[in-house]
Amino acid sequence: MLFKNIAILDENYNLKDNMYVGIKGETIDYIDTVEPNESYGESYEGKGKLLMCGFFNSHAHTPMTLMRGYGENMSLQDWLTKRIFPFEDKLNGESVYAGMLLGIAESLRFGIVSTTDMYYYGDDMAKAILGSGVKNNLGRGVVNFSEDGEIDLLPGFQETKHIFETYHNEGNGRLKVDISLHGEYTSNPKTALHLAEYMKAVGANMHVHVSETEFEHEECKKRHGMTPVQYLSKHGLFDTKATAAHCVWLEGDDFDILAKKNVTVASCPISNMKLASGVCNIPYLLKKGVNVAIGTDSVASNNSLNMIEEMKVFAISNKGKQFDPTLVTPVETLRAATFAGAKGQGRDDCGKLAVGFKADLVVMDLSKPNMHPIHDMATNLVYSASGSDVLLTMVDGRILYQNGEYLTIDIEKAIFEAEKCTKRILGELK
Amino acid sequence: MLFKNIAILDENYNLKDNMYVGIKGETIDYIDTVEPNESYGESYEGKGKLLMCGFFNSHAHTPMTLMRGYGENMSLQDWLTKRIFPFEDKLNGESVYAGMLLGIAESLRFGIVSTTDMYYYGDDMAKAILGSGVKNNLGRGVVNFSEDGEIDLLPGFQETKHIFETYHNEGNGRLKVDISLHGEYTSNPKTALHLAEYMKAVGANMHVHVSETEFEHEECKKRHGMTPVQYLSKHGLFDTKATAAHCVWLEGDDFDILAKKNVTVASCPISNMKLASGVCNIPYLLKKGVNVAIGTDSVASNNSLNMIEEMKVFAISNKGKQFDPTLVTPVETLRAATFAGAKGQGRDDCGKLAVGFKADLVVMDLSKPNMHPIHDMATNLVYSASGSDVLLTMVDGRILYQNGEYLTIDIEKAIFEAEKCTKRILGELK
Repeated sequence: MLFKNIAILDENYNLKDNMYVGIKGETIDYIDTVEPNESYGESYEGKGKLLMCGFFNSHAHTPMTLMRGYGENMSLQDWLTKRIFPFEDKLNGESVYAGMLLGIAESLRFGIVSTTDMYYYGDDMAKAILGSGVKNNLGRGVVNFSEDGEIDLLPGFQETKHIFETYHNEGNGRLKVDISLHGEYTSNPKTALHLAEYMKAVGANMHVHVSETEFEHEECKKRHGMTPVQYLSKHGLFDTKATAAHCVWLEGDDFDILAKKNVTVASCPISNMKLASGVCNIPYLLKKGVNVAIGTDSVASNNSLNMIEEMKVFAISNKGKQFDPTLVTPVETLRAATFAGAKGQGRDDCGKLAVGFKADLVVMDLSKPNMHPIHDMATNLVYSASGSDVLLTMVDGRILYQNGEYLTIDIEKAIFEAEKCTKRILGELK
Repeated sequence: MLFKNIAILDENYNLKDNMYVGIKGETIDYIDTVEPNESYGESYEGKGKLLMCGFFNSHAHTPMTLMRGYGENMSLQDWLTKRIFPFEDKLNGESVYAGMLLGIAESLRFGIVSTTDMYYYGDDMAKAILGSGVKNNLGRGVVNFSEDGEIDLLPGFQETKHIFETYHNEGNGRLKVDISLHGEYTSNPKTALHLAEYMKAVGANMHVHVSETEFEHEECKKRHGMTPVQYLSKHGLFDTKATAAHCVWLEGDDFDILAKKNVTVASCPISNMKLASGVCNIPYLLKKGVNVAIGTDSVASNNSLNMIEEMKVFAISNKGKQFDPTLVTPVETLRAATFAGAKGQGRDDCGKLAVGFKADLVVMDLSKPNMHPIHDMATNLVYSASGSDVLLTMVDGRILYQNGEYLTIDIEKAIFEAEKCTKRILGELK
């Protein structure tokens, strides 16, 4: 495929007009101002459009789309115990598949090419991922509230092992399976150590919730005399490539540990604000050299997978919190939403519009009034674009979404099935 | 016009499916579950769509679209003195018209039917407003840094008088002219008193910036021994219908004064966060019974006129700031973006999808994955919709925007002219 006469946001987040970008198989093969001699097959007329790297969503629970707007304006405790947990108790493979597919469709609409997910019914999630053509780092969050019993026999660990052995690097590497400890506060040291050991043995990534709420952070200190970052580091969870979601209440040497251990922080600014958890100190993490990426968290707490909206809140939340408008630039934000996310997922050949990188791309509509004038394209993308200005989403060189149409998903059926599963569960909860 | 088989968000922000809504002239004439006997002319098939009241943007400087993304990550002082003021110094009627028309097009794309604006070159703004068919409460912000001279001779006052006498209630009342004191910190008591007197004499509304930054608020207290709210109230600026933009640093009896004087607060959460000004205490204003509406502020500080995005940040910013997820409900948010805005503009027959009200309406696309499932429509609209899920925007019964097309604006020309004026100014600034 050849993109012709198209503006691009290059690997340094600069605008280049009237470019030619050739895709060969899964890979970006050609970027230049002149038309290539080589034929790249089908061509795409790019006038009035911008080609850029697609977005990497670094923390989500995609199947929770079914709980979109189910339980609003409630305290965290009420929300979890009266809404989320009872609903989740009624989930099955069919409904997780339906929620996952709906969430994948939504992700594609908003330019997301790859997601770091933590949820369960991994077989059904894998089916939706492999069938739709997206990238995903899939993890089954392991929880353990008991001191007794073998960790090996925990349902979470068994599912982790099953999905790792079955799906890791399937779909030509599009689907990776991460090992996932749900969090310090939902497990114990024995579980943490066991997961760390397994993760190192198989060479997988770690995905874990860290210091999302003040309560979680302070309780950990009371329980263990350590912050969650110190605790996880001590138990070996950061000894392979790790993604730490949220990181709102970091303190002291937490920042240095994350930097030293090359942990990726997945900041989820909208969910953190909406659930009243707080604001992650992104500028200080960046200053310390931490790889900061962006997550939407689940639709139950966001309530969308609109990465463009998420970028805007990512960029402005620290300005507002720290009373300093110079904090967090558009380029830092775009990097977090693309390259940093890919790096956190262990996808070293992804996250850049550069020759040799995977063709995980989006085309943005520049013909709309909200994208003009263009003093600075990076700024317009972060602050002025609307989620649905995404015209095309491509993963590994394959178009999955274009002009509102899905090429691998029957969208009407996907919405119908998600609604049906939701109704079934609400009926059972009555 | 007759909307058929369409879901509506009724005047109480509840979802009703399969409705018929008939528009007669400028007015909503019929809302029922059954098809009317009377003919309403052209019909609109509403399956998979939602009809709701359009949005009222309660504080903007629309022509500043030309400065979208011009000067980012700067301190407020640098941003104003190195970017905004020099750029504004080069504006003329032609460029203000171009910026205004571009901003109107963007507003329509995001479902805004009416805007409370403060800027200059009022003739050119009025031309764009009247030509495009939107509603606008137009004000010329009066500034005065001198103690000498007649207020009557100030350019700002002269323009105010001119536009009031020429345009107030033109376009069958679509265009209203408000009197506008830019702010306490950009004028003096003599100016404030004079404007209040004029405003009362002609029976116009007031539009003023209030306590946007801590510096402004504290300096006012030093200068006058009063908060900005106390100062403006004392000088009579709240003696007709007034809109107070921002209100971030209110304290003490400010809240009660605003309630007692029936002042509309136009909260601009994105601009306030992005410029690092702070977070307006919306829940406390609502508790005090203040009419709280939503403004985008200018595109130079937002950087879009995406009211759906603005609603989301309006709803979550206080949850995050006050660590309480129960604050500011979706219904409070929708009311602020519609009815409260119309009320603030003195448009008592606008802001509701109800029989007898003006047909200022938007149609939202419900066919997209981000709007499903529907546990609660108000919640989905505030948190899950994307700005460009707006399919149609109608003002006074006239369709101005539909499926990406503008019926009163040559959009390609509007973008071209805005780019051209921007280039001219940047050239002169070199």
